[in-house]
Amino acid sequence: MTKKLRIIPLGGLGEIGKNMTVLEYGRNMIVVDCGVMFPESDMYGIDLVLPQFDYLVENQDQLRGIVLTHGHMDHIGGLPYLLRQVKTSIYGTALTIGMVKRQLEEGKVIQQANLQVVQDKAAFQLGPFKISLFPVAHSIPGAVGLVIDTPVGAVVHTGDYKLDETPSGGRTTDLKRLRQLTPNGVLALLADSTNADRPGRTQTEQVVSDELDRLFAEARHGRIIIATFASLLARLQEIMTLAKKHGRKVALTGRSLQENVALARELGYLKIPDRLLVDIDARIPDDKLLILSTGSQGEPRSALNRMAQGEHRQVQVKRGDTIIISGGTIPGNEEEVGRMLNKLFERGANVIYGKLADVHVSGHGSRDEMQIMLETVQPRYLIPVHGETRHLHLHARLAESVGMAADNVFLLKNGTPWVTDGETARLDKPVAACDVFVDGRLVGEVGALVMQDRQRLSQDGFIVAVIRVNAKNRLAGEPEIISRGFVPVNGSSDLLQAASKEIKQQFNRGKHVAHDSIRDMLQNFFYRETLSRPVILPSIVRV
Amino acid sequence: MTKKLRIIPLGGLGEIGKNMTVLEYGRNMIVVDCGVMFPESDMYGIDLVLPQFDYLVENQDQLRGIVLTHGHMDHIGGLPYLLRQVKTSIYGTALTIGMVKRQLEEGKVIQQANLQVVQDKAAFQLGPFKISLFPVAHSIPGAVGLVIDTPVGAVVHTGDYKLDETPSGGRTTDLKRLRQLTPNGVLALLADSTNADRPGRTQTEQVVSDELDRLFAEARHGRIIIATFASLLARLQEIMTLAKKHGRKVALTGRSLQENVALARELGYLKIPDRLLVDIDARIPDDKLLILSTGSQGEPRSALNRMAQGEHRQVQVKRGDTIIISGGTIPGNEEEVGRMLNKLFERGANVIYGKLADVHVSGHGSRDEMQIMLETVQPRYLIPVHGETRHLHLHARLAESVGMAADNVFLLKNGTPWVTDGETARLDKPVAACDVFVDGRLVGEVGALVMQDRQRLSQDGFIVAVIRVNAKNRLAGEPEIISRGFVPVNGSSDLLQAASKEIKQQFNRGKHVAHDSIRDMLQNFFYRETLSRPVILPSIVRV
Repeated sequence: MTKKLRIIPLGGLGEIGKNMTVLEYGRNMIVVDCGVMFPESDMYGIDLVLPQFDYLVENQDQLRGIVLTHGHMDHIGGLPYLLRQVKTSIYGTALTIGMVKRQLEEGKVIQQANLQVVQDKAAFQLGPFKISLFPVAHSIPGAVGLVIDTPVGAVVHTGDYKLDETPSGGRTTDLKRLRQLTPNGVLALLADSTNADRPGRTQTEQVVSDELDRLFAEARHGRIIIATFASLLARLQEIMTLAKKHGRKVALTGRSLQENVALARELGYLKIPDRLLVDIDARIPDDKLLILSTGSQGEPRSALNRMAQGEHRQVQVKRGDTIIISGGTIPGNEEEVGRMLNKLFERGANVIYGKLADVHVSGHGSRDEMQIMLETVQPRYLIPVHGETRHLHLHARLAESVGMAADNVFLLKNGTPWVTDGETARLDKPVAACDVFVDGRLVGEVGALVMQDRQRLSQDGFIVAVIRVNAKNRLAGEPEIISRGFVPVNGSSDLLQAASKEIKQQFNRGKHVAHDSIRDMLQNFFYRETLSRPVILPSIVRV
Repeated sequence: MTKKLRIIPLGGLGEIGKNMTVLEYGRNMIVVDCGVMFPESDMYGIDLVLPQFDYLVENQDQLRGIVLTHGHMDHIGGLPYLLRQVKTSIYGTALTIGMVKRQLEEGKVIQQANLQVVQDKAAFQLGPFKISLFPVAHSIPGAVGLVIDTPVGAVVHTGDYKLDETPSGGRTTDLKRLRQLTPNGVLALLADSTNADRPGRTQTEQVVSDELDRLFAEARHGRIIIATFASLLARLQEIMTLAKKHGRKVALTGRSLQENVALARELGYLKIPDRLLVDIDARIPDDKLLILSTGSQGEPRSALNRMAQGEHRQVQVKRGDTIIISGGTIPGNEEEVGRMLNKLFERGANVIYGKLADVHVSGHGSRDEMQIMLETVQPRYLIPVHGETRHLHLHARLAESVGMAADNVFLLKNGTPWVTDGETARLDKPVAACDVFVDGRLVGEVGALVMQDRQRLSQDGFIVAVIRVNAKNRLAGEPEIISRGFVPVNGSSDLLQAASKEIKQQFNRGKHVAHDSIRDMLQNFFYRETLSRPVILPSIVRV
């Protein structure tokens, strides 16, 4: 029997985030990326979402290593959790491995990993897989795509990329190398679908650079405060360069930003002129200072949001400040960002954000770039990755519109193995690949049922009725009604007293009164009175 | 003492929605609009937000009438609640009054209102106020702006408007009439700020019409399903006209849509060719059918979302269907809309939404239009209305950039009276103008404290510890721990048992054990174990 190649996405399909793909051949397995996803707004109380690692943990004796495309959290953030259960080698370019190292140290699992820094045009063998890297343009330096030569043919994984011809630092996507690495054609292309609903090409990073240059010139007389993603290192480089040009010192605020800048500088990815950086407490005239901050998503505890709330220890926003939000708003964060902007305006600042100026561009290629990738690689099979269902479907249709047979485009779900012998391909029985929730210290314990309860509690609160009964199941004293999140506890004593009275009546009717009948009665009573459905839990206490 | 004009915004400032403005002169008062706001996503469990009506209710003997600019919910939706407390006359154009009538009938308060239909160039007197209307282009027919002549000068309220030169139905904003109505200049302009962060002009509705025409032609072989706002009547007209052109019958699904179409047709605002409308159950070939649906915001119970979930009784989405979302996504709804799109793609439909084609334009003018309005009216004072804080500030800066003195631009908050004698202007002591929450049958009872509890419950759930003690305050039996939304109730019995043990130890230490000390102990225990902070409520039951 011929051995087959199995490709199993464990995350990143049908969602933006927690990207993770397994490749298997015989008893050999490699993994590409291991990311986290930030929770959607109806994942109540959840801090992070992880891919389900069970398949990997069960087969860890076959794992030959993990290869990383770049250092963003949706590609590396799952590693501290995975490495609690698995010991392995991890390969990536210097910045990527630097960021992983910091995370694994924080997670106290660094001894589980054999970290391997590779060059961005490196090639190395992991079991039957030969992995060759090619540089790609993305919003973080050191990003790469992968050509993975397997016994049944070459697989290309683009990672996140755009075909920016004038990117920050001049690092373009090396399609020429990609072509050279695949002289015998490509069996399967796994390609980024994030921007499959954006026509044309993604604007070049140069647009942002030019716009910031113009805005810096206009903001001649006051401070400039710029918020961006701490991981958008390409943008940070531009801002530093422009600060120097406009004669401003740069102060950093926000822990992740300080850490990333220090790391990228140490590794040579960020070129910062001497004496450009100053302490946030340094006495610098307003027109000579640029403050670089976290908080482009309006996160409650971020540096910029603390400024908006007037709670930042060192920076008080004032009239004359120009504040630039140089980062796109992630879907779901619109309201928080909007509220932060409102507060910054109220403090008198001149606030510039995406709707008003070209202060951000995406790090992902749009439809025309996706088409060029397809035409460059000319794969036999396409597996769209990195995107919600609509993005994967739009990517598939784009491929069909440029001539791919619909049968050769596979729309997978997380956990569905795609199996090929190099000639034909089919889907296999799914492996477990659900969302795993991180909630404080609990990993994987909080699931759908708890989520439903939280959802219901958020809408209508709860009522616990503590009912004392004697040995004859007769009421012994007044029922106690405990409630939160339903109606004001003091203001609505009438309503809660009426409920208490209903309980008494039920007992007075003399029939045997059970837990469930009280719950149903209260449920009906409160719905009738308020049209709300609080969670209702009677507690019958025998005295 | 000269009498003064007081303008008091009761809603719509610092927010998008619940627009409502009071004008007072002597013992005379009129109100412009009375809208609702849809809740932000952290207003847990809230159905609607109303302006606070107290000031109006207290001074209702002075109320000369309510004037409405158009029939959208953010301008008329508060009336059924206000009229529970106030009896008055209401003025508006025919469609506006038609929509109000339906609402007041549903709210069973129609007998409180004296409804007055006025022409869109009417002028009428309410006490010392002479109100003259001028037609404006907006996304609903019958929209007007107001010139209000007062004893101290003319006030212009734009309502919602855009300066579309090729709007649906040809109804442009009548700036000529506005000029004619204000021969002696304008004291104060209250102008729409919704799009103050959009440079240039808002695209004309004609763009949508042309794009839909093209998409209809492309969708030659299957059904067309279009979702839009039921209140976007201008868009509905275009769709009906294009359906006719492309030889398709139109079926409606969604109650609000059916009601609005019936009403607008009856009043002559919607021109529907004979036999164009068919029942949703009618047997029409796919290529001859267009289904018009509610649900452009992904609302859970809307017709389109039921199709996406496979729960719509009459319409099963299938391969070959073209689904067009012809409505912008309201901030906060992005995730719900995204999920609905994903499900529709999964069912095989060709789904077209805002990112992919020009299938929606805003009904509000952008910065260039706001500038033209300022230059047309040339007011002494500007009060930006209808917008979040950032929009009001950007509107103010726009006015300053075209020459208005900063001192003549007033950034008000809801409840702040703006007072003028016609020569000078100042702010007065605020009146109450908070958010009033509608939660089921409760209006105004659910406030900030309940909201905080719901927020906390949504994050970490709750724990009620029912602790039986005897007369000596000793533990009488095992504590019972009741919990929801914290950890799985069955899965984490270890954790809850450990908590129970902690309670026992506290009693065993022999000191007097009080409610608060148990709560604090459990709070610390659970935070230590899980990093979560559930709501904790001990209930000590004496047996």
